[in-house]
Amino acid sequence: MTENDAVTAAVVVIGNEVLSGRTQDVNVQFLALGLGELGISLDEVRIIADVEDEIVSAVNLLRDKYDYVFTTGGIGPTHDDITTASVSKAFGRAMIRNPEAEAILLSNYKPEDVTEARMKMADTPDGDDVVLIQNPVSKAPGYQVENVFVMAGVPRIMQAMFDDLKPRLKGGAPVSSRSLDAFIPEGLVAGPLSDVQNQFPDIEIGSYPFVRSGQLGTCLVARSADEAALDEAADAIAAMIRSLGGEPNDPTKPKK
Amino acid sequence: MTENDAVTAAVVVIGNEVLSGRTQDVNVQFLALGLGELGISLDEVRIIADVEDEIVSAVNLLRDKYDYVFTTGGIGPTHDDITTASVSKAFGRAMIRNPEAEAILLSNYKPEDVTEARMKMADTPDGDDVVLIQNPVSKAPGYQVENVFVMAGVPRIMQAMFDDLKPRLKGGAPVSSRSLDAFIPEGLVAGPLSDVQNQFPDIEIGSYPFVRSGQLGTCLVARSADEAALDEAADAIAAMIRSLGGEPNDPTKPKK
Repeated sequence: MTENDAVTAAVVVIGNEVLSGRTQDVNVQFLALGLGELGISLDEVRIIADVEDEIVSAVNLLRDKYDYVFTTGGIGPTHDDITTASVSKAFGRAMIRNPEAEAILLSNYKPEDVTEARMKMADTPDGDDVVLIQNPVSKAPGYQVENVFVMAGVPRIMQAMFDDLKPRLKGGAPVSSRSLDAFIPEGLVAGPLSDVQNQFPDIEIGSYPFVRSGQLGTCLVARSADEAALDEAADAIAAMIRSLGGEPNDPTKPKK
Repeated sequence: MTENDAVTAAVVVIGNEVLSGRTQDVNVQFLALGLGELGISLDEVRIIADVEDEIVSAVNLLRDKYDYVFTTGGIGPTHDDITTASVSKAFGRAMIRNPEAEAILLSNYKPEDVTEARMKMADTPDGDDVVLIQNPVSKAPGYQVENVFVMAGVPRIMQAMFDDLKPRLKGGAPVSSRSLDAFIPEGLVAGPLSDVQNQFPDIEIGSYPFVRSGQLGTCLVARSADEAALDEAADAIAAMIRSLGGEPNDPTKPKK
């Protein structure tokens, strides 16, 4: 990848509990924001069931398409935790008991609490290039194999794992944003906004309607790694809002 | 599909704002629960960017693979709202100004507030089989084309649209669940739980660790459309918890 290329990522959420609605996923937003800070663009998310074929095909497709893939979920001790078996299969590698992970788990449990189910959490795909992801919360580690990072699904653990693996990621220029909102309905902003977007084709401009105190409004968000161009675009958006009779307001700044 | 087949669905969340982390998606959980009540199993979710090729390929792959596809987002008036153009392309149909949708919008706006951007929200793929999805919140409708339902991304509007389209869905037997939790760590439950799962291969049993008042525990959730088998499995799980020295508790029932 050249320096100018955007660095891209995908997330695979593995978990029947998200698909059944039992659990509200919060990992995607955490990863989106964390990757964004590193200049890595989250381009796709898939939420799939604990089904081997689905995991194998999603991991193989996405690791080929994006610079990084992050999986969450399915690395616990129970029968429905099949992520490591599936990821091993995706890479065409055997699943082994990882000696380093085994040592971590054995030092964490009293001898009488060591069960085969628990030791399953020391399994990884085979290969000298597999690097563990430390888990300060409950010890059982995740791991990195090539450009795929396998993490727990429990948010506290996933967040700690992401902190551990962050230094391994090579980001691009971090993407900044400028937000401006105004009490103008989206349908009236849309036309003039198209003109601004055409004027700044390299800047991603999003438009988000809102209702506040019973009044319709629109929040406009410009995103780019180019700070100077971003400032110009924000000025153009502010001018457009004024031309429609509105008063541009930066929602990220505290009210006076 | 035969009566015995599970009825399946996929959701496509179209929105840069979710991928950037600006917005926490809440539509997936709402749809997962709503579909579950109708006996429709949400089997896959994709969150993709406002990029035509990505929308076309996701819609075409998923409408072939699942009984129903629901999209959320990208049907507003602005330049980044490209869902309808993309869905039309996916179906190989022209995008037309839908007369029924046009009438709804024209009756909703004062003549001076009618803009081309707003009228864009009356566009749908061509075809007599296209059925609008009513939007009581802000009027601009969604639509159904074959087995694909195109909805707004704003949760309040999406929820109202889902209420409108619900009667069109043919579900299977609704899936029920039984939950039991106990203060036993997941690593100790895992082995015996595998035996219960093997005893009831047709019942999906999930295991979810928790920490409550500083104590480790596990919540076990059995899901099936077969109520009688579910009761048997719940009894087997309760017996297993007791055999491990724990006291099974139904977290869905109020404490005495």
